[in-house]
Amino acid sequence: MSINKKLYRSGPYADLFSQGVQVGNGLYMAGQVGTDESGQAPDDLVQQMSLAYGHVKDVLSQFDANMDNIVDETWFVTDIDDCMAKVEELFSERQRLYGKAPEVSQTLVQVAGLVDPSFKIEIKCIAVIN
Amino acid sequence: MSINKKLYRSGPYADLFSQGVQVGNGLYMAGQVGTDESGQAPDDLVQQMSLAYGHVKDVLSQFDANMDNIVDETWFVTDIDDCMAKVEELFSERQRLYGKAPEVSQTLVQVAGLVDPSFKIEIKCIAVIN
Amino acid sequence: MSINKKLYRSGPYADLFSQGVQVGNGLYMAGQVGTDESGQAPDDLVQQMSLAYGHVKDVLSQFDANMDNIVDETWFVTDIDDCMAKVEELFSERQRLYGKAPEVSQTLVQVAGLVDPSFKIEIKCIAVIN
Repeated sequence: MSINKKLYRSGPYADLFSQGVQVGNGLYMAGQVGTDESGQAPDDLVQQMSLAYGHVKDVLSQFDANMDNIVDETWFVTDIDDCMAKVEELFSERQRLYGKAPEVSQTLVQVAGLVDPSFKIEIKCIAVIN
Repeated sequence: MSINKKLYRSGPYADLFSQGVQVGNGLYMAGQVGTDESGQAPDDLVQQMSLAYGHVKDVLSQFDANMDNIVDETWFVTDIDDCMAKVEELFSERQRLYGKAPEVSQTLVQVAGLVDPSFKIEIKCIAVIN
Repeated sequence: MSINKKLYRSGPYADLFSQGVQVGNGLYMAGQVGTDESGQAPDDLVQQMSLAYGHVKDVLSQFDANMDNIVDETWFVTDIDDCMAKVEELFSERQRLYGKAPEVSQTLVQVAGLVDPSFKIEIKCIAVIN
């Protein structure tokens, strides 16, 4: 039996995968990276994180959802030392983006690489929609 | 309170984990690697991807499901440069396996290693079943 | 529309993320590492695994759940060779902790690093609650 999916496709890989897939009240999102409007990633990790959440917000908005709907985050970073050195700045900015203390579970690991060598963080979120 | 799980156990690690676990309409699947019938992985990444999706299909079929039921994929690869160099071939073959443009979210990261040094890709899927 | 989350916050990062987030019957848990009561991780991988599951159990108990509720595990390890060399010991101890053959799907990858260099394993679980 087929299931009823709502899809949001966008960006250069729109034919390959969806940025978000909703079935019932579950919303699965593709990992988001810190690219700006030109498709480039700034050098700074905090800026990349901020831009990545911007993409997360964009995807959520396509499903009439916002960051309150996120329940789980996985952060894949390429330099955990850099990440921990900036942890206060990162989490302060993240809280600002959430508008409050985030109500999400989180897992943070260092990977060996992301799709482009300039990417320092990829954020994969799962959300629940009423 | 206990929950009602439907399990599919298979392969050399059948006692250690299930290839698929269904509760309600959610189906969680173990990461699948590109082994052939002899348990070996061919050298080519595209072939490994193809074989891995073959295992995904096998697991889905145990739950009367197929690739249309997949909502989310995480690809763990050991060489992202090799992966990106072959991205057109990979995604063309993947679309063939799906039978259409896949309706799934996707996250792709390079890990430092998989269970066997010959493995180049592991694909972890979440599916929803009606 | 906002969703109804039940959160469990604990530990040094309680303001940054929740150890568990329940919405409906889905429980998402933060990755757990093998720290003891002093916050230190022992050198041995098996001991770290055991301690990590201890934290998983603690989180589950906050939601009136136990290890039977786990449906999916992702293991992020820093040395897959060490992990495979100890695979029998690891899975024997894990089965003891579960109290039976675990009824979960599992994915195991080697990452490039975890939050602290002393950490050898991080276990991310998804559970379902009746």
